[in-house]
Amino acid sequence: MNLHFKTIGVVAKPSNAALLSLKKLITILLKHKLTVLCEKTTAQHLPQHNNLRLCDLPLLSKNCDLVIIIGGDGTFLKTARLLACDQVYLLGINQGALGFLADINPNQLENKINEILAGKYTKEARFLLGAYVKKENKLKEQFSALNEITIISDNPSHMLEFEIYIDDIFLCAQKSNGVIIATPTGSTAYALSGGGPILYPTLNAITIVPMFPHTLSLRPIVIGANSTVNIIVSKNCKYKAIAYGDSQNSMEINNSNQISIKKIKKTLHLIHPMDYDYFKTLRHKLGWGHNP
Amino acid sequence: MNLHFKTIGVVAKPSNAALLSLKKLITILLKHKLTVLCEKTTAQHLPQHNNLRLCDLPLLSKNCDLVIIIGGDGTFLKTARLLACDQVYLLGINQGALGFLADINPNQLENKINEILAGKYTKEARFLLGAYVKKENKLKEQFSALNEITIISDNPSHMLEFEIYIDDIFLCAQKSNGVIIATPTGSTAYALSGGGPILYPTLNAITIVPMFPHTLSLRPIVIGANSTVNIIVSKNCKYKAIAYGDSQNSMEINNSNQISIKKIKKTLHLIHPMDYDYFKTLRHKLGWGHNP
Amino acid sequence: MNLHFKTIGVVAKPSNAALLSLKKLITILLKHKLTVLCEKTTAQHLPQHNNLRLCDLPLLSKNCDLVIIIGGDGTFLKTARLLACDQVYLLGINQGALGFLADINPNQLENKINEILAGKYTKEARFLLGAYVKKENKLKEQFSALNEITIISDNPSHMLEFEIYIDDIFLCAQKSNGVIIATPTGSTAYALSGGGPILYPTLNAITIVPMFPHTLSLRPIVIGANSTVNIIVSKNCKYKAIAYGDSQNSMEINNSNQISIKKIKKTLHLIHPMDYDYFKTLRHKLGWGHNP
Amino acid sequence: MNLHFKTIGVVAKPSNAALLSLKKLITILLKHKLTVLCEKTTAQHLPQHNNLRLCDLPLLSKNCDLVIIIGGDGTFLKTARLLACDQVYLLGINQGALGFLADINPNQLENKINEILAGKYTKEARFLLGAYVKKENKLKEQFSALNEITIISDNPSHMLEFEIYIDDIFLCAQKSNGVIIATPTGSTAYALSGGGPILYPTLNAITIVPMFPHTLSLRPIVIGANSTVNIIVSKNCKYKAIAYGDSQNSMEINNSNQISIKKIKKTLHLIHPMDYDYFKTLRHKLGWGHNP
Repeated sequence: MNLHFKTIGVVAKPSNAALLSLKKLITILLKHKLTVLCEKTTAQHLPQHNNLRLCDLPLLSKNCDLVIIIGGDGTFLKTARLLACDQVYLLGINQGALGFLADINPNQLENKINEILAGKYTKEARFLLGAYVKKENKLKEQFSALNEITIISDNPSHMLEFEIYIDDIFLCAQKSNGVIIATPTGSTAYALSGGGPILYPTLNAITIVPMFPHTLSLRPIVIGANSTVNIIVSKNCKYKAIAYGDSQNSMEINNSNQISIKKIKKTLHLIHPMDYDYFKTLRHKLGWGHNP
Repeated sequence: MNLHFKTIGVVAKPSNAALLSLKKLITILLKHKLTVLCEKTTAQHLPQHNNLRLCDLPLLSKNCDLVIIIGGDGTFLKTARLLACDQVYLLGINQGALGFLADINPNQLENKINEILAGKYTKEARFLLGAYVKKENKLKEQFSALNEITIISDNPSHMLEFEIYIDDIFLCAQKSNGVIIATPTGSTAYALSGGGPILYPTLNAITIVPMFPHTLSLRPIVIGANSTVNIIVSKNCKYKAIAYGDSQNSMEINNSNQISIKKIKKTLHLIHPMDYDYFKTLRHKLGWGHNP
Repeated sequence: MNLHFKTIGVVAKPSNAALLSLKKLITILLKHKLTVLCEKTTAQHLPQHNNLRLCDLPLLSKNCDLVIIIGGDGTFLKTARLLACDQVYLLGINQGALGFLADINPNQLENKINEILAGKYTKEARFLLGAYVKKENKLKEQFSALNEITIISDNPSHMLEFEIYIDDIFLCAQKSNGVIIATPTGSTAYALSGGGPILYPTLNAITIVPMFPHTLSLRPIVIGANSTVNIIVSKNCKYKAIAYGDSQNSMEINNSNQISIKKIKKTLHLIHPMDYDYFKTLRHKLGWGHNP
Repeated sequence: MNLHFKTIGVVAKPSNAALLSLKKLITILLKHKLTVLCEKTTAQHLPQHNNLRLCDLPLLSKNCDLVIIIGGDGTFLKTARLLACDQVYLLGINQGALGFLADINPNQLENKINEILAGKYTKEARFLLGAYVKKENKLKEQFSALNEITIISDNPSHMLEFEIYIDDIFLCAQKSNGVIIATPTGSTAYALSGGGPILYPTLNAITIVPMFPHTLSLRPIVIGANSTVNIIVSKNCKYKAIAYGDSQNSMEINNSNQISIKKIKKTLHLIHPMDYDYFKTLRHKLGWGHNP
């Protein structure tokens, strides 16, 4: 049976459209007599709502049982990486185009929110990847990613040379622009443009997609998500690499350190309206045409 | 701990090279005082071994704890589909080029077989797909496949129009040459030529690869292997489809019936020598170059 | 300066929509006091127009200075292959979806035809390929193609093995489903689904696209259209090949004969309305989005 | 009939292997009593040859009828861009792996050079592209490229948004990592890794290859080499673009200027040994296997 949410956090992108949806949302939530916690910087854009209870972004996951995020995929990724844990559910309301993550249309906001507050929703867990840069076995830097971790040359006109190991077993050496390691969530984002496969969202797997490889027979590979991927910049590679997480965070890697990529313990718990249909989103976003 | 094999079945392709390896193999097995069961049609090519115990191919899995197959990928696929079950292990000796399935080189036959008989080997389970053609919910025909099930137009110069359902949820309608549904084992075979991803052998997943789709944004998708894929030839499609299993079996599908594809209950239990390295085979077969 | 057309042939697909457009077209042409020649089998579907001058399809190119084809790409291809020559221009009116070849929308028929009859149009030449099956240097069979010539195994579940020669120089041996040799006109049809490049329509070049090649590094190649492509089925290939022209004609090839493919002397002369824009058609047909 | 070369320029990469080949080459040339001009910085690595006539790199094309370049593809590209003109022929001697441009193996140096000096060689013309950054129609910066011009975001983790025009006709707007515009010479280099087609070396065409496009149906396009490609960074694109020429030169582009790319007037005249076979190089470099 589904949980009836009591304390609801709200976060919005500071655009006019998103803030308009946010006001509508707050009105609906208050009508249901629920506790609403507004993320602090979001609240600065709502001067008229001066009686809202405020909360720092990182604390929303501790204090709420549901956090609603209004914005595009960028806002959702950023917020979700921070809040993902077993204590909180996340829901996305998209502005503009239908997103893969933010799947409620602002036009249907009232209906869908009422449904969800009545306990009518479906749950879905998504995992995140952690990236760890180590030097002489000591952790130097880290970040997490919901979509993908991309490793590319810091000089985009030159190929990177690196080796990939899966659970400490050598997979391949490659000369390429770089490599994308994507979760199922990220498999429909950047990795797809690079020729990677679509992974069903709940599949416990990751895909490793070579970017413009010099060896033409290198192909995307899909491995279990419990494996660790280690990447080492080759000794004779003249360029440094940069690792990006969801194209939002970055860390430098050179040939005296290495990067490990593996699933993190924290899980992202999404909720969807009852009529959510992943394949429908896929057909719509990728222009596959419609049910005959 | 590994089983010490006692009764060993042998099957070989009727080529000179394979039969030569077979004779060597029988000598080794008899030296170890093991019971050897020779598959009946294979035995016809060994007139000098007139004291061998014979066995029908389908009964090998019942009467042996290990069956050794000598030949190429074709021989292995055919034999493995028939014998796969929980009571028997299979081992492949390749002739000619190193195979993905038959991974013992005939030059190393004695060493590797001695090792394996001493209990030094690794085990790996691979699943098979079953394909079921149904008319008005009654099963008409079926086959199984270790590599892939391919569905194509019976008129290769015309596109097929069909719909794909995953667990009864509509995925997409497509106009294409056809579609490949491959296991991890088959992901490095036909599906790879068609742009499909490489699936790590023990991943519980299948990939659905569109063949020359009219809609350019259709891409390979990877789903869990416990899902059922249903394919329906569109009402307005003028052509019949043919389903192939491992390019060795075939069944006709038209727009008054449908095909279901799902994992079968029987598992293929492979054994490998201790130094087996899947990634090494991958690098070698696909020409990815070597460990630097 | 553009020619003012005097004798106009008309051909239509026998669908209700196409015949409706045809009647409209004939009315417009007669209003302009032009001589109209109706293709014979087309005329059978127009019982009411019993005073139309009739003409056999192949004679239209001799007797007309413009032939207007109403239908889809299939009708256009079939008619254009037959009529292509230096004495006649062809114009296509599409039914349903905008085509690459038939680029007048039936809704705009009157406007566009009036414009064209006033001499306001652009001309474009397209070349065709001829395919010649020879045995011991004697021609056995031939056909021509406007889009592409496809060579595939007659057993679609088995790979074909063949060699390609360009102007008698060996290009490569390949094991694949087959190969597509496409003109610029055909580069947006079947070859595109197979991963081939788009060739600008007036480029004097052809593209050779391998179909599901076993060697993953085989890629589409573009060569000058004055070259001859020879394809020989390998001696050890167990299967016959079939050559298709525009998916409408076919010939058998085995390993005792060979096929030559080269540009034919006859040219297809298309005319387009003044606002014709190839890139616009491309964006529209391939879903590339619009001018910002 | 072929020219007998009289004044020969020599340029080498300053590696031990290249300098060794250079010494061998100079000995051969002097034995033939030819005038040898050694490029100045190359000469600094040959202290023992203190009686060599020296020449500045850019003047070699004026003073020689043949320039021989010893090194890899990088050295060849750099030198060829500078020297290409109608007065001089270029010949490449590769070090290490067989190159597409430098096609004489150092082991065969004496034989091949003797052949060429005897007038036994083939000639081949290759064109170069020029890239011109203009602001308010005034030229700000320019460079030329033999392989390709690549335009990418200066922030590699973010997509570039830009529009492409061919001869001032809008082709498409795209959101992607960038775009490669390659000559036939460059079609087997970076563009090939990005999924572009192989263009036969003497084809008068260029290919435009989208890099990781957001719209999955965007494909490589091949247009005539006399066309001008204009690229404009979109008004709403937050990132600057960088144009690279042969990955060796670069210029910045922002949304207040634009880049034009077109064939330059100067032609590169290559010579090859008599047994030169482009398809053989292709098979060898791409691992296509051999003539059966």
